[in-house]
Amino acid sequence: MSKKIQEFNEYRSKMNEKILATDNKVIKRIFNLDTNAFKEGHLPVKTKELLGLVASAVLRCDDCIQYHLESAMESGVSKEEMMETMSIANLVGGTIVIPHLRKALEYWELLEEEKQ
Amino acid sequence: MSKKIQEFNEYRSKMNEKILATDNKVIKRIFNLDTNAFKEGHLPVKTKELLGLVASAVLRCDDCIQYHLESAMESGVSKEEMMETMSIANLVGGTIVIPHLRKALEYWELLEEEKQ
Amino acid sequence: MSKKIQEFNEYRSKMNEKILATDNKVIKRIFNLDTNAFKEGHLPVKTKELLGLVASAVLRCDDCIQYHLESAMESGVSKEEMMETMSIANLVGGTIVIPHLRKALEYWELLEEEKQ
Amino acid sequence: MSKKIQEFNEYRSKMNEKILATDNKVIKRIFNLDTNAFKEGHLPVKTKELLGLVASAVLRCDDCIQYHLESAMESGVSKEEMMETMSIANLVGGTIVIPHLRKALEYWELLEEEKQ
Amino acid sequence: MSKKIQEFNEYRSKMNEKILATDNKVIKRIFNLDTNAFKEGHLPVKTKELLGLVASAVLRCDDCIQYHLESAMESGVSKEEMMETMSIANLVGGTIVIPHLRKALEYWELLEEEKQ
Amino acid sequence: MSKKIQEFNEYRSKMNEKILATDNKVIKRIFNLDTNAFKEGHLPVKTKELLGLVASAVLRCDDCIQYHLESAMESGVSKEEMMETMSIANLVGGTIVIPHLRKALEYWELLEEEKQ
Repeated sequence: MSKKIQEFNEYRSKMNEKILATDNKVIKRIFNLDTNAFKEGHLPVKTKELLGLVASAVLRCDDCIQYHLESAMESGVSKEEMMETMSIANLVGGTIVIPHLRKALEYWELLEEEKQ
Repeated sequence: MSKKIQEFNEYRSKMNEKILATDNKVIKRIFNLDTNAFKEGHLPVKTKELLGLVASAVLRCDDCIQYHLESAMESGVSKEEMMETMSIANLVGGTIVIPHLRKALEYWELLEEEKQ
Repeated sequence: MSKKIQEFNEYRSKMNEKILATDNKVIKRIFNLDTNAFKEGHLPVKTKELLGLVASAVLRCDDCIQYHLESAMESGVSKEEMMETMSIANLVGGTIVIPHLRKALEYWELLEEEKQ
Repeated sequence: MSKKIQEFNEYRSKMNEKILATDNKVIKRIFNLDTNAFKEGHLPVKTKELLGLVASAVLRCDDCIQYHLESAMESGVSKEEMMETMSIANLVGGTIVIPHLRKALEYWELLEEEKQ
Repeated sequence: MSKKIQEFNEYRSKMNEKILATDNKVIKRIFNLDTNAFKEGHLPVKTKELLGLVASAVLRCDDCIQYHLESAMESGVSKEEMMETMSIANLVGGTIVIPHLRKALEYWELLEEEKQ
Repeated sequence: MSKKIQEFNEYRSKMNEKILATDNKVIKRIFNLDTNAFKEGHLPVKTKELLGLVASAVLRCDDCIQYHLESAMESGVSKEEMMETMSIANLVGGTIVIPHLRKALEYWELLEEEKQ
């Protein structure tokens, strides 16, 4: 597995555990909601993942983008669909989103290599 | 037609014309891109409208939300799908998005009344 | 009661009811969390209200500011404490927060008049 | 004088006085800095006003935009220069800046009428 | 001392000196205000540090969060109070604040180790 | 050449090529606009670079700041003018811009060393 993806996931898991161990109820429920909100509902999982991706991109949160890139790929999103989603982020959110697009494409390619 | 929708659309049209009349090429091209980016591509129009809606919502732009609510409804988005999209905006963008959710639902209901 | 406060509260109540009536579970839980998060915990209610106020101010959400001004006053926050909280918002968040400070002070004075 | 400009300036003056009357030192100094920062320095006043305008525009603060439009016009900025500045704001900050561009151009035209 | 804390503080000190050496008066005064605003006033230092922390968190500035975590700990803030403050940041600012919560907790633990 | 500048430019070039190779028309046009918007127009290149710098600074995009620092220096901007621009960013955008000011000054000094 790509070292970058592995480190990202391990750090996230480790810290999420520590966060949940502090036993703050509001944070626990937000984490819980984060899982539920992206489950199949009136909208399919794939669309929801694209919504999560574009929201993360215009808010310029690299970690959130990487998280949604992984689940987007798992839900069957193609590279073209991912780029189209990011193009809307760049248009609506402006050129300040471009550095995040660079990192997003780099991460997507790592995810693709891993799948092979 | 609802007075609120009419005023919003008339103001937008009037000012867009004035903006384009200033003949600033960069702005003209951004306006042009804004039309093209939401056309059918690898993703269907409906999905793109939801992407535009969630991006507008987390960036908390009421005018942008209203614009995408109109085109979302035209592209066949249901109230449940709209609310699901807004729920992701509220989760990812936080409770500061709630005031925009109130206005969004109010505007959606005006659009629904108009359709009847 | 001040017309402005009354209208703000009535609109918020009316739309909140409509939002909850759409029966979107994620949104319902976010609304629920919003109530719980500001209850007495390790920090007293008053401190939490000031935290909610400063967060709303730097994120420049007038409706959120007004909401927290009301509950801050109810929890015993003085005008000087409110202004000190807003001064931190203006320093950390910059002069773009000033227009929201104007509205905040205006709303605070309406709330004070009402109390008399 | 245009009613809109007058109301905007009167409200700002009235509330600024009330803010300064609360005697919060941090806020007083921020207000003071706000005046000093836009005075002639290594950069001419006109350039500084354009910097203030573009910063206000990408941060999407209508009141701040109107304030800088007034002083920009006073410092000799032309409509073309204002639009070029706003075009950079729209490119860097994205299409969510467009609603603020509409209001900016509307306000600029009111300021122009007043000058005649 | 933790290498991470040391590097962070050394870099900040070194660059702050260079910034002040450029002799820009506006920046000097902002730095000065930053010190004064968090001193005891109508609100105690501890509350002000929590205000600084939550503002930094919703604005998603890791360096600012680390700075306020250090002074919050010095002013007697407990881990539970810090987490409660961060929970409000996550609720008001949304799940995009979560990556900053991970880093905040990691930094807090480093600060705790150092104290022993 | 400074390793940091070189790595930044190489990464940007490499990823920009990959982005353009995905052949997404909206993104291509945004990249194209980004070049055109900063060319001489009613405003000189130097002023436009300062506008790009202050917009990037208040939106807190380090990569965008570095990009504009390079082109600002090329267009003849002095260190004092750069600092004055950044001081407006710090005032309008608040102290959360300070960490970006530190990195900006560090990068500017690397660019200066390289020029010698």
